[in-house]
Amino acid sequence: MNDTIALLKNHRTIRRFTDEPVPDGNIREAVAAGQMASTSSAVQAYSILRVRDDIKRRKIAELCGPQDKVAECPAFFVVCADSRRHRLAAERDGFDYDQRLEAFLVGVIDASLFAEKMAIALESMGYGICYIGGLRNCLSDVDAVLGTPEGVYPLFGLCVGRPDEEPSRRPRLPVDAVLMEETYDSDDRVLAKLDEYDATYRAYLADRGAPSEDGWSQRMAQKYPTPSRPDLAAFYAGKGADLR
Amino acid sequence: MNDTIALLKNHRTIRRFTDEPVPDGNIREAVAAGQMASTSSAVQAYSILRVRDDIKRRKIAELCGPQDKVAECPAFFVVCADSRRHRLAAERDGFDYDQRLEAFLVGVIDASLFAEKMAIALESMGYGICYIGGLRNCLSDVDAVLGTPEGVYPLFGLCVGRPDEEPSRRPRLPVDAVLMEETYDSDDRVLAKLDEYDATYRAYLADRGAPSEDGWSQRMAQKYPTPSRPDLAAFYAGKGADLR
Repeated sequence: MNDTIALLKNHRTIRRFTDEPVPDGNIREAVAAGQMASTSSAVQAYSILRVRDDIKRRKIAELCGPQDKVAECPAFFVVCADSRRHRLAAERDGFDYDQRLEAFLVGVIDASLFAEKMAIALESMGYGICYIGGLRNCLSDVDAVLGTPEGVYPLFGLCVGRPDEEPSRRPRLPVDAVLMEETYDSDDRVLAKLDEYDATYRAYLADRGAPSEDGWSQRMAQKYPTPSRPDLAAFYAGKGADLR
Repeated sequence: MNDTIALLKNHRTIRRFTDEPVPDGNIREAVAAGQMASTSSAVQAYSILRVRDDIKRRKIAELCGPQDKVAECPAFFVVCADSRRHRLAAERDGFDYDQRLEAFLVGVIDASLFAEKMAIALESMGYGICYIGGLRNCLSDVDAVLGTPEGVYPLFGLCVGRPDEEPSRRPRLPVDAVLMEETYDSDDRVLAKLDEYDATYRAYLADRGAPSEDGWSQRMAQKYPTPSRPDLAAFYAGKGADLR
């Protein structure tokens, strides 16, 4: 295993940070590294907004859960899919802009590839990170704080700072449950792999002092009976995304 | 700049590969590293399908463009957002599964974070990679070749192998065009940043022996007048995604 892979495999979500600030130079270096992620036909359909203002941070923290780390972490960002540059260029040059799900999807993929590469750059400097999917809990209200214009779609938050905890590594699905050969696995094989993982997951929970009869798959089974964040499509449509 | 950041910044898309095979052990190591990417509430809503069969590879290569590298690269994969494990667990345990855009979005984000981390692991071993967004050109036809079941959403392809070319690095948007402070930039500032980038981009094109009066923003302006891949939403809906 080379050093980079050791770093990649050592990731864990950090939720408690020291007060040490993250110098702007390190952030710019991480963003520049993130930007070298692949991007569909070079469209670079993303932006990242740094939020410093205390009052805004506290409002967003409240809307995300509440999640205090959003207000308290040394550096907080919002990662956005972004078609605005394309729209402004089209308007400037007199072309129409008429896109559907594909353009939104490219933005989400581009933004995520960028964010993960940026996160790895930060981890290589010894920082810890935590993505904040809870940003989408009340996204209209969060966006009222951010004030993003049409064509900019906030996706998730990102907390960054020096780790002030050393959490254990949460085990992932077996490689064979995720990497498939030639065809997608049969239902029986999927479920057998989940049994295998559930045993690992229960051991992990017990090890953390939170033993449970439910493994991973029991938790997932109970997670989806009613739509999560049902206003999301309407929110993005309101920001100019055509999801047809 | 540390060694990891040097690697991250050195990325370029590789489209020509040597014949050297990619050993399964290296692929599994890269997948395992990729799986350590963050995942929303540990849902791990993705899978990666390796396609080896020559006939399938040639069909998919044709549908993607044609793009010969899809048939000819040493290892070809299809990255999928995947809700199937969750659905099967729910069915097994007697729970409903009723989700909308949020669950699809989580799958796309999770799959992209995973893929980028896997790609970086492969690059750290000296492999080159190329994502294949062209997979979505005729996704129904591609999926007929793959035969993925309901709840599995193919997103993009991934070619991997030893580089047989050393392409120049395509310049990205200025950091200040992507990283914004507190609020999204004014239209004037966005357009001024695009002017700056267009100059860089024209110099890059000239340097590659393909000089053009169009910079990046002129290309983007002309790219979006009619919907790209307009069948995509219907395809994903047909696979069980509710995009409302």
